[in-house]
Amino acid sequence: MATPTLTSRFFDDVEIGERFDVGSADFIESEIIEFASKYDPQPMHMDPVWAATGPFQGLIASGWQTIGLTMRQIIQAKMFGSTMVLGLGVEDLRWPVVSRPGDRITVKVEVASKTPSKSKPDFGVIKTHVTATNQKGEIALSMTSILWVPRKPHR
Amino acid sequence: MATPTLTSRFFDDVEIGERFDVGSADFIESEIIEFASKYDPQPMHMDPVWAATGPFQGLIASGWQTIGLTMRQIIQAKMFGSTMVLGLGVEDLRWPVVSRPGDRITVKVEVASKTPSKSKPDFGVIKTHVTATNQKGEIALSMTSILWVPRKPHR
Repeated sequence: MATPTLTSRFFDDVEIGERFDVGSADFIESEIIEFASKYDPQPMHMDPVWAATGPFQGLIASGWQTIGLTMRQIIQAKMFGSTMVLGLGVEDLRWPVVSRPGDRITVKVEVASKTPSKSKPDFGVIKTHVTATNQKGEIALSMTSILWVPRKPHR
Repeated sequence: MATPTLTSRFFDDVEIGERFDVGSADFIESEIIEFASKYDPQPMHMDPVWAATGPFQGLIASGWQTIGLTMRQIIQAKMFGSTMVLGLGVEDLRWPVVSRPGDRITVKVEVASKTPSKSKPDFGVIKTHVTATNQKGEIALSMTSILWVPRKPHR
């Protein structure tokens, strides 16, 4: 059985306004604690006993793990197929509500703008609006992601 | 022997322009791969053999791990002592250069602005400029972090 070949999508193939539903991810208590112990070591993210009587009345995930789960979904969805895309930066990152063990976020991406590079004609900059919505319909994360995307060869 | 008590620092105790050197963190190949396999599964971050002949001629860290290492240093430095501070969001996040195994980033934080909350008088918003500079003096990460900080009680 042949391995299916993943189609490449380039800067030129993506349309402004195009939307991608890239799926859902779950917050698991053990992973919240593991992430926080390495990258955001605060008791509100690591210590369920402390957190139970803390200001959020329970453990909350590091906002950086919320991004990690969001990114994983985006990468796995392969919006650009086999094309390698580099993140240049992020604007307007917000966590309007906290995420907790058992929460499920559903991630959507919308193409907001496309700008061909002036200095490197083989590349362009695509901005995407990313939202992660929890099971209650609340926005757990929103951001504008700035991507460096190859242009179509021989266009 | 008594446990030393960590002093609390509040919104009112922090000055605009105040700087914090919060130390250094190292990129370790196994941790780059482990992080990427969970949160940013792309071959440029996970597969040293593929990456060796890829566009960066070697493995590069997920930009989100660069933030993770930066955050760990900031948290461990306890800029606000024992006061619990919540991240509301980030502006102008950029990764001007990639990070690789063996790189060491040194993290600095500068207080950029302070705005008392109008709706919640016990809190204020502090914006900090964060930079992570690698061993060559290149900026590996810069961002403006937006923090929700308790005001001094009985001020």
